[in-house]
Amino acid sequence: MTLHNESTAALAQALLHPASIALYGASDDVSKMGGRPVQFLKRSGFAGRIYPINPKRSEIQGLQAWPSLQSLPEVPDHVFVLTPTDTVIPAVRESAALGVKMVTILASGFSESGAEGVQREEELRKIARETGIRILGPSSLGVVNPRTGLVLTANAAFAEPDIPPGKVFVASHSGSMIGALVSRGKARGVGFAGLVSVGSEVDLNVGEICAATLDDPAIEGYLLFLESMRHGTELRAFARAAHRAGKPVIAYKLGRSAAAAEMATTHTGAIAGEDDIADAFFKDLGIARVGVLDALLETFPLAKRIPLESAPKRVGVVTTTGGGAAMAVDQLGIRGVVVEPPSAETLKRLEQAGLPCTPGRVLDMTLAGTKYETMKGTLEILLAAPEFDLVLAVVGSSARFQPQLAVKPIVECAGQPKPLAAMLVPDAPEALAALTAAGVPCFRSPEACGDAIAAVLARRQQGQEPRLPAPGPARTLSEVQAYGILDAVGVPHAPVVLRRFGGEADPLPFSYPVVAKVCSADIPHKTEVGGVLLNIGSDEELVVAMATLRSNLDEKAPKAICDEVLVQPMQKGLGEVLVGYRVDADAGPIIMLAAGGIWAEIAKDRSIRLAPVTVETAREMVLEVNALKPLTGLRGKARGDLEALAHTVSALSQLALRPELRVAEAEVNPLLIMPEGQGVTAVDALVFQQL
Amino acid sequence: MTLHNESTAALAQALLHPASIALYGASDDVSKMGGRPVQFLKRSGFAGRIYPINPKRSEIQGLQAWPSLQSLPEVPDHVFVLTPTDTVIPAVRESAALGVKMVTILASGFSESGAEGVQREEELRKIARETGIRILGPSSLGVVNPRTGLVLTANAAFAEPDIPPGKVFVASHSGSMIGALVSRGKARGVGFAGLVSVGSEVDLNVGEICAATLDDPAIEGYLLFLESMRHGTELRAFARAAHRAGKPVIAYKLGRSAAAAEMATTHTGAIAGEDDIADAFFKDLGIARVGVLDALLETFPLAKRIPLESAPKRVGVVTTTGGGAAMAVDQLGIRGVVVEPPSAETLKRLEQAGLPCTPGRVLDMTLAGTKYETMKGTLEILLAAPEFDLVLAVVGSSARFQPQLAVKPIVECAGQPKPLAAMLVPDAPEALAALTAAGVPCFRSPEACGDAIAAVLARRQQGQEPRLPAPGPARTLSEVQAYGILDAVGVPHAPVVLRRFGGEADPLPFSYPVVAKVCSADIPHKTEVGGVLLNIGSDEELVVAMATLRSNLDEKAPKAICDEVLVQPMQKGLGEVLVGYRVDADAGPIIMLAAGGIWAEIAKDRSIRLAPVTVETAREMVLEVNALKPLTGLRGKARGDLEALAHTVSALSQLALRPELRVAEAEVNPLLIMPEGQGVTAVDALVFQQL
Repeated sequence: MTLHNESTAALAQALLHPASIALYGASDDVSKMGGRPVQFLKRSGFAGRIYPINPKRSEIQGLQAWPSLQSLPEVPDHVFVLTPTDTVIPAVRESAALGVKMVTILASGFSESGAEGVQREEELRKIARETGIRILGPSSLGVVNPRTGLVLTANAAFAEPDIPPGKVFVASHSGSMIGALVSRGKARGVGFAGLVSVGSEVDLNVGEICAATLDDPAIEGYLLFLESMRHGTELRAFARAAHRAGKPVIAYKLGRSAAAAEMATTHTGAIAGEDDIADAFFKDLGIARVGVLDALLETFPLAKRIPLESAPKRVGVVTTTGGGAAMAVDQLGIRGVVVEPPSAETLKRLEQAGLPCTPGRVLDMTLAGTKYETMKGTLEILLAAPEFDLVLAVVGSSARFQPQLAVKPIVECAGQPKPLAAMLVPDAPEALAALTAAGVPCFRSPEACGDAIAAVLARRQQGQEPRLPAPGPARTLSEVQAYGILDAVGVPHAPVVLRRFGGEADPLPFSYPVVAKVCSADIPHKTEVGGVLLNIGSDEELVVAMATLRSNLDEKAPKAICDEVLVQPMQKGLGEVLVGYRVDADAGPIIMLAAGGIWAEIAKDRSIRLAPVTVETAREMVLEVNALKPLTGLRGKARGDLEALAHTVSALSQLALRPELRVAEAEVNPLLIMPEGQGVTAVDALVFQQL
Repeated sequence: MTLHNESTAALAQALLHPASIALYGASDDVSKMGGRPVQFLKRSGFAGRIYPINPKRSEIQGLQAWPSLQSLPEVPDHVFVLTPTDTVIPAVRESAALGVKMVTILASGFSESGAEGVQREEELRKIARETGIRILGPSSLGVVNPRTGLVLTANAAFAEPDIPPGKVFVASHSGSMIGALVSRGKARGVGFAGLVSVGSEVDLNVGEICAATLDDPAIEGYLLFLESMRHGTELRAFARAAHRAGKPVIAYKLGRSAAAAEMATTHTGAIAGEDDIADAFFKDLGIARVGVLDALLETFPLAKRIPLESAPKRVGVVTTTGGGAAMAVDQLGIRGVVVEPPSAETLKRLEQAGLPCTPGRVLDMTLAGTKYETMKGTLEILLAAPEFDLVLAVVGSSARFQPQLAVKPIVECAGQPKPLAAMLVPDAPEALAALTAAGVPCFRSPEACGDAIAAVLARRQQGQEPRLPAPGPARTLSEVQAYGILDAVGVPHAPVVLRRFGGEADPLPFSYPVVAKVCSADIPHKTEVGGVLLNIGSDEELVVAMATLRSNLDEKAPKAICDEVLVQPMQKGLGEVLVGYRVDADAGPIIMLAAGGIWAEIAKDRSIRLAPVTVETAREMVLEVNALKPLTGLRGKARGDLEALAHTVSALSQLALRPELRVAEAEVNPLLIMPEGQGVTAVDALVFQQL
C-alpha cells in the first residue's frame, strides 16, 4: 500500500510537477509540432530544467540542445517524445534504461493503424511492464499545468499569452479538446489546475491519471472528456476515491448517437459500448454527465456546492424576465427536472415583506421592475424556504449594464447554506465574472444551465462495491444448471422435471399442459434446433414430444451432447420482461430490466444500473420501463406483481457479490409477471459461467 | 388589395421608419423605464423628431417637453405610451382622435390580470377597430431599428454604446429577449435589421408585424422568439409570404416541456398548444425551429444558403480534430441527421491529389497535420462530390491563433455552389468573425451546429393551402352521419345496418357475430352509457341486445334522443390506430396518426402534419409511429396494409379542402389495419361539424 502510494506520488510528480523535462526530437521551427513545446515552456516561464534533444543542432530556440538522452547531466523526470512513429520504441527503451519515470508519446500509428501498429503497442506495454516506466499516449498532445508554467504540449491552441490556473483537472481522450477547453475556459473566466491529453492509453489511462492527482490539494474537481467508455475498472476506482476525497467529477462523453459511437470506435480502436450503459455507469458512480459542451466548463461549482449525499431534487426559480426564466424551466423540464412553485407559506412571507408574489411556477419580478431590494429580499426568503433544495435566479437585461440591481444581491447571498445558482439572459461578461469570483454556480445559456443542474441532480449514491472473480474464459450452462444459479440468488423459476431420452417416465409433479425443451450446455439457442415443444397435453403426447425432440436434435445438432429433456408446466403471465446481469467489459457488472418480446426491439425500453442494486433501486428501474406501465393498473387493467419483480431484479444483481458463482452473464428471458401478489416466474434462463 | 398594401406600408413605416415619435409620459430620470427611450434615442442619433410628453416639465433630458399630444406641432407617426395601466386607454383614444397611425403600450395589467384587465383589453381592441389606429402591446418593451437609430424601447439592455445593424428582423413575445439577442448578437458579430417586442398582441401580432416588413429590402430573414403558439392564422400567412419572398424564418419556441408550456399559459393568458403540434406547424410551413438559444442567432446564414425547395439531406464532414468532429456528428445524430461517409470515388480523387483519405464517416486530417493546402484541396473535392448536399468543416486548435491554416480555405470556398458550413472547436472570435463576414454559416458550439443544421434540414415543402369554412359553433354527428363524412373523403369503414328500436328486423347483409351500438348525435361516448354490445352471435341474440341497449339508455341517458341502433360485423385487424383531423385553434387544420389502445397513453407515439397531406407525406407519417413497426414484417410477423393506411390518412386530411363538409374535427378510432393487400377499416368515428 505504501509502495502504491509512493509510486502514485512519483507519477503525479513526473506528470504535473517535473523538475526536468527532455524534449526528444525538439525542433527550432516553432511552426512545427516539435517546436511548439520548447516555445510554450519558455513563454510560460516553466521553472524546471528543459533539455531539447536534437543531435543535429547545438541550440534550439535559444536553449542548449543535447545530442541524446544519455548525454544529459541528469535523468529527466519526464521525456516528451516528439519524433515519428518508427523512432518511438527506441526512445522509450532508452528512457527506461536511464531510469526516467515517465515518457509521453506524441506520435500516432499504433493500434489504430493495423497489425504493425498493434505490435508496436504491445512492445510499449512490455517495456512499461518490465521496467516500470510509465507511458502517456501514444497520440498524446501532452500535459499542461498552468500553476507551474508546465506547458508541455504540441497543441497549437497553447500559443496563449497566459493560461489562467484554476481548481479543476482535465483528462481528455482528445488532445485537441485540451486546447479548446483552455480557450473556452479563458473566455468564460474558468481556469484549470492541470490538463492531460491521454491519447490511446496503452499504459496510463484516464482513471489512473486522475487517481494519481487526488492528493494534490490544489485540485478540487475533475473534468473528463471521453470519446468512449474504456478502462472502466480504473475509472470506477477513481470515481470512488474522488467521492471519498470530496472532489466532484464531471464527464462529457461522445457517442450519444449511433454514428458518433461508431466514430469513436474507428478513431481509437476502442469497442464502443452502448450509451445507456455508460450513462448508468456515470450516474451510479456519482459522476455528473453533461451533454452540452459549455456545461463541462460551468458545472463544477454547482457539483462542488451540492454533495452527492444531499443531492437536492426540488428547484425554485426567481426571475427578472418571464421569457428568460421560461427558457431555463424548459431546458430543465426536457431533462426531467421539474421546477417547484413556492409554498403558500413562502408566498405569505413574501407578501408580508411587500415583495412580488406572482402566481405560477416561478417568482416573476418582471412587472415589479428590477430592484436591488426586491431581489435581495426575495432571495433571502427563498433560500430559507424548506420546499427548495436549490434556488436558481434568472437575470434579464439589467445584468448587462446594471449588475447592482439583480446580480449584486445574488453575489451577496452566495454564502448562505442553501445552494444558489444564476443564469444570465443577455451577454453580460462582467456580471458573469463577478458571480464566478463569488463562487456562485452561474450559466450563460439556458442549455448549459438546464444540463448542468440536471446532471448534478441525476447523480446517484455510489452502491456497494462488487466482488468479482478474476476475468477469464466462460462457458454456457444448460438451462437446468442456469436454474441452479437462479436458486442460489433467489430468483423464482417454474418447476422443472428432467427426463432422459429413453429413460423411465415417472409421473409429473405438475399437471398438463407442459412444455418440453432439450437441455444441454451445447445448445444455448434451443428454438433454432427445434428444441422446444409447447402445449403438450398428456403422458402420451409427452412421449411423442420426446421422440420429436430426439429426431430434431439428430438432424439439426448432431454434434451436441444432449441426453435430457426439461419439462415445465405451461405458464402465462400478465406480461413478460427480460432481466439480465452481465460483467460488461467497460462498465463492470450491470443489471438490466427490459421490455420483453417485440417491444424490446422497437423502442429501446430498458433500465440499467451498476450491479448490485437494492430493492429500492430496483423499484426505480421498474418505473423506468414504459412497457410495464399497463401493469400498474392503468385504464383498469389488472395489476402485475411489480414488487416481486423489483425483488427479483435486486436478487439477480447480487451475482456481483457472489464471486464463487463465477457468473459472467445471466439472462432471464422471459420472466413472467403474475397478477399482484402472485409473484414472478422465470421460464427460461441463459447463464455464462467462468471456467 | 391596393388598400391593404397601402396600410401595410404605412404600418411598416410607423413601426420601423417613423419620422416623428411622441413619448407619452417621458421622464427626466434615466434610471426609470419612462426615461430610457429618450436617453436611448438621443444616444443612438435617431434622425426623426422626438416629442417627450410630460405636463409637469418644460424640458426632458435636454429636449423640449410638451404638455399633451394635442399641443404638438404635428401628428406624430408613432406614440410610445410609457404611463401606468390606468392612463393607457385615454392616451390611446387621444392618439387615435389626432390621427396617429400607431401606438405602442409599455404597461401591463391587461388580460393577464383578471376581469378588469380583460375589459381594458377589449376597450383597446374596440378603439383599434373603430379608428384604424394600430396598437403594439400592451406589455411591449418597444421597437428598435438599428439602421436608423430608432431605439424606441424601455429595455435596459439597450444602454448599448452602438447597436450593429444586420440582415434579420426579430419579433419576440418576450420583451426582455430583444435586449438579450442584441447583446448576444453583438458578442457573436450578428446584427439586426429591426427588433419588435410584441407584448400581448391585442391588435398587432407576430405574423402581421413580420408580414408588414416583407417589402423592406434590407430585411433578408426573420427570427421569432415565441412563448407559445398563438395567432397561427397570421403566422401561417406570413410564413407563406416569406417563402415566396425568399426570406427564411427561424423560430425558437418555448414549451417543449410540460412545465414551461404551463408557464407560457399563466404568463400571457395564451392557451398553450401541445408542442408536437407547434413543431409540425413550423416544419410544414418551412420555418426552421431551433431548440438552442445560440442557434437562433447562428442559423440564418445556413437557412438563407439552402432554399426550402432544395433542402439537402446528405451532410459530409471534414475535420482537423477527431474529437471535435465527433461532437458535431453526435449533436447531428441525436437530432436525426446522419453524416454520410465519402464515396469510393471521392476517396480515390483525394488519394490521387495526395490528400489524406481516412476511413470512416468523416475525413479526419488530424494525423496529416493542419495545413492550408490540405484543407483547401480536400474542401474543393468534397464540394464537388455528388454524394454531399452540404459540407461541414470542423476546425480545431489552429482556428484560435493560426486561421491561415484551416479557416482561410473555408473562407475562400464560401462562394462555391454547394453550401459549406464551419464549426470552431476552440474559442476563436477572430476566425468566427472572418467566416461570418464571408457569409459562411458558422457555429461556435457543437450544440448550435447540430441544432441549426437539423432545423434547416427538417423544414418541409409548404403543402396545399387549406380551404376552411368560417369558424363557428359545431355539433356532434351520430356515428352513421360520421360515416357519411368518411364516405365523402374516401375513408373505408365497416358495413353498417341501422335498426330502429321496435322496428322491422330485416335479415343482415353480413354474417354473425356482430356488434350493436346506440346511434345518436346526443351520445358521443357510447361505452359510458352501456351503448355498445359485442359478439352478438344470432338473430335471437340481436333481439335481446336491442332490448338491453334500450334499457341501458333509459337508465343512463334518459334525455338523449336515440331511436336507432347501428349493427356492424365484428372485425379484427392486425393492429389498430387512431387517425384524427382537427382545425386547431392555433395551428389550423392538422392531421394526426397515433398508436391505438393503451400505447397511445403510455408513449406519446404519434405523427402530426398540417392538413391536407399527400399520400407520400402520409407514408412518412406511418414510418414515424413506433407502434406500427411490428406490422412492417419485423421478426417474421404478418405485414399490415400500411399502404392503405397511408392512403386513408391522406384521404381524411382532405377535409381541409372540403369547406362544404364543414368538419371541425373528425376522429377515426379505431381504424383497423388488415393484412397486406386487405386494406384498413374504420369501426368507429366521431365527427364535429359546424352548424
